[in-house]
Amino acid sequence: MIDSKVKQALQSIVGPENYDDSKAGRLVYSYDATPQFQSMPDAVIAPRNREEISQIIKICNEYNIPIVPRGSGTNLCAGTCPTEGGLVLLFKHMNKILEVDEENLTVTVQPGVITLDMTKAVEAKGLFYPPDPSSMKISTIGGNINENSGGLRGLKYGVTRDYVMALEVVLANGEIIKTGGKLAKDVAGYDLTRLFVGSEGTLGIITEATLKLIPMPETKKTILALYQDLEAAARSVSSIIANKIIPTTLEFLDQPTIEAVEAFAQIGLPTDVKAILLIEQDGPEEIVKKDIDQIIEICKSEHAVSVQAAQSEEEAEALRTARRAALSALARLKPTTILEDATVPRSEIAKMVKAIEEIAKKYNLRICTFGHAGDGNLHPTCLTDVRDHDEIERVEKAFEEIFEKAIELGGTITGEHGVGVMKAPYLEMKLGPAGIAAMQAIKTSLDPNNIMNPGKVFAKDSRKRVVVSK
Amino acid sequence: MIDSKVKQALQSIVGPENYDDSKAGRLVYSYDATPQFQSMPDAVIAPRNREEISQIIKICNEYNIPIVPRGSGTNLCAGTCPTEGGLVLLFKHMNKILEVDEENLTVTVQPGVITLDMTKAVEAKGLFYPPDPSSMKISTIGGNINENSGGLRGLKYGVTRDYVMALEVVLANGEIIKTGGKLAKDVAGYDLTRLFVGSEGTLGIITEATLKLIPMPETKKTILALYQDLEAAARSVSSIIANKIIPTTLEFLDQPTIEAVEAFAQIGLPTDVKAILLIEQDGPEEIVKKDIDQIIEICKSEHAVSVQAAQSEEEAEALRTARRAALSALARLKPTTILEDATVPRSEIAKMVKAIEEIAKKYNLRICTFGHAGDGNLHPTCLTDVRDHDEIERVEKAFEEIFEKAIELGGTITGEHGVGVMKAPYLEMKLGPAGIAAMQAIKTSLDPNNIMNPGKVFAKDSRKRVVVSK
Repeated sequence: MIDSKVKQALQSIVGPENYDDSKAGRLVYSYDATPQFQSMPDAVIAPRNREEISQIIKICNEYNIPIVPRGSGTNLCAGTCPTEGGLVLLFKHMNKILEVDEENLTVTVQPGVITLDMTKAVEAKGLFYPPDPSSMKISTIGGNINENSGGLRGLKYGVTRDYVMALEVVLANGEIIKTGGKLAKDVAGYDLTRLFVGSEGTLGIITEATLKLIPMPETKKTILALYQDLEAAARSVSSIIANKIIPTTLEFLDQPTIEAVEAFAQIGLPTDVKAILLIEQDGPEEIVKKDIDQIIEICKSEHAVSVQAAQSEEEAEALRTARRAALSALARLKPTTILEDATVPRSEIAKMVKAIEEIAKKYNLRICTFGHAGDGNLHPTCLTDVRDHDEIERVEKAFEEIFEKAIELGGTITGEHGVGVMKAPYLEMKLGPAGIAAMQAIKTSLDPNNIMNPGKVFAKDSRKRVVVSK
Repeated sequence: MIDSKVKQALQSIVGPENYDDSKAGRLVYSYDATPQFQSMPDAVIAPRNREEISQIIKICNEYNIPIVPRGSGTNLCAGTCPTEGGLVLLFKHMNKILEVDEENLTVTVQPGVITLDMTKAVEAKGLFYPPDPSSMKISTIGGNINENSGGLRGLKYGVTRDYVMALEVVLANGEIIKTGGKLAKDVAGYDLTRLFVGSEGTLGIITEATLKLIPMPETKKTILALYQDLEAAARSVSSIIANKIIPTTLEFLDQPTIEAVEAFAQIGLPTDVKAILLIEQDGPEEIVKKDIDQIIEICKSEHAVSVQAAQSEEEAEALRTARRAALSALARLKPTTILEDATVPRSEIAKMVKAIEEIAKKYNLRICTFGHAGDGNLHPTCLTDVRDHDEIERVEKAFEEIFEKAIELGGTITGEHGVGVMKAPYLEMKLGPAGIAAMQAIKTSLDPNNIMNPGKVFAKDSRKRVVVSK
């Protein structure tokens, strides 16, 4: 509960119309896209600029009020669920594209800009922002930066982190700092820019960002390779890279996912194959042609049962849309869908997919797997029902084993979804106690009162997954 | 002074042959490549593995002994000068290339590996490690990582930071942590990998690194464009990028630098032009040809007085070598050479070069400018004599104005050399007090006793440049 004096102070900063502590208003922001997590905030606040954010944070710091920055809430780690109450901070007034700089190849945005809107704005000028999280139609750039979002083009182009050049951040003490610049090279002190990227709102509130752009690739081609054998698909992935080709996209779908996607999207995917690779290459026309021809040869020699190139941009777009729809398609099948993002080195994909299959069998669960094969970022997705307590317990055990296996293969517990509340209990598997302690020390040094999105990244206890709602 | 009990403990860790506190031994490590800085360490220590480093650090932490990790000491910010005494830590026993992983496109190295040796080892397998600091023939990878080294290929390929995927680090408390992995995507907690990159040995000792590789570009072409007008050269740079071409290298030399380089290297550079651009493109044969043709057209239309393509790899290599020799060539002319790396957004290069010329005139100094025009990373280089106190005072004032101008143009005080001792007094210009305070908080959280390369990055006082040796 926020006491009335503090409420008044907050309202006087943002105006009463931008402060909502009604039950209905709070309920809307009590959850995000992550299943199984819900908790009521004390109020929802929508500041209009960085100075207002600075003033809000100073009050939060004085009265120990948690503050949870939130874009569109599309994250899958309960990163924007206000598990400890406090204020949910919205960026609906801070949603402008401030500048597209064609000379320095940058775009400067406020955090509330929708990713796809920005992408379209820069593409209109022949420029390209590669990170493309599946949620990009509704996610915000601020959210992408806080979560260090990945996407389908990560293999060739990297992730959000690789495109953030400068940030403006309000720290927990209310100070406003600027990091980086429109600079390809800058070694003036520690790399705070990349420390804030992916810090999930636990170190500061990002109020502006300058992102790197690249020239728009001239053309793009899409192919679909079908396999009756999982390992042949994985071998194709390795063989493409070993042949020194880095495709833009190298996506994998297993049979259960293919079935679900086809039932949902009806674009004529064959449902009787064991695995599909969706492969794209972009770049100059002649290079794309050469690469795609070579990729087709490689897939065939690795015993793909069929390799087809999309005959038109419409056909290619249908394939991409189908892949992007995988989660939605699977989500229709059972009441609860738990999507994970265990990630391994590319060379270990076949082992990891096999392990997931075995673990699913062991715990008698339905787990479908799809994901970014080229960068080892898999999405084992469990179709379950949160009301079936016995099954949910098995789900938890299964995912713990999946994470263990990923770590054993040199991987990580989360490739692109973030830690949030959901993965916090598992973080120590990846980092060890000394790694966690180092991160915790940094957190405490920048946010001594733990007001910035508390309860995220660092586990309060070893309780896994099942969260009791407030 | 290290007391005899502590000395015994240190010797028992590394063996007496790897501990040197003789005057001659210490003198060798009392300075690095940075002019004007010298200070004696108490001893020099050469551990054989991470466990020994961990034990050494625990002792340093207990007895408050500064520890200065040092590769080849080629940095230009006095980053490895032991200004507060203590131990200089060498990596001469930790200089192995541990693995080239052709499937995951990574190389794993110990910190003492010479950059060029690693580059050659991966190139032998058709792979490519793009960062190429001018010192790469003698610098170590550990040093490159600690300084986040740049180089001539930064425009297209980025800097060291963009290639570090995983680190093993011994923290100030002696704990050994591992960050990242052979993973294109990993969001398990804060990005410690990139926090350590460029932290100049102030946060921990890097004991192993896994670096990202890319396929070796098929071919490379080099051209030289000559200008009678500085701004025409700068306009060419902007115009190339605006035409959506990102060359590998886009180097700039002003007339005084050209003269010095030609006198030194004698490769037939014309010494009567105002500026030279050295431009390279790499990639698939057909694309390089297309890009180079277009670049030649652009340079001509921006009034280059001559544009020539290197006719052979030997000729191209001679041009590259000439550019790399700029610092050595200039260093011959006067007893003291002070090389800076003020960096601005690409669009501001012409303004910055002009400002440097005016400042040199104002303070009656000889400042030559060359550098990486494509990424705005200039190297104004002052030819002076440290014994001429009056002139040195003017040099200091001039560089302060140069840094101020760079900041005013949206730039930074250091693009690739690091802060060290040398730039520490200027860091606040770039970061402001709140930015410095945030970095200092992080430093203190990870190294509460300030034993890790103390005196670097953070200024003790506002005294600029002139350092009284111990």
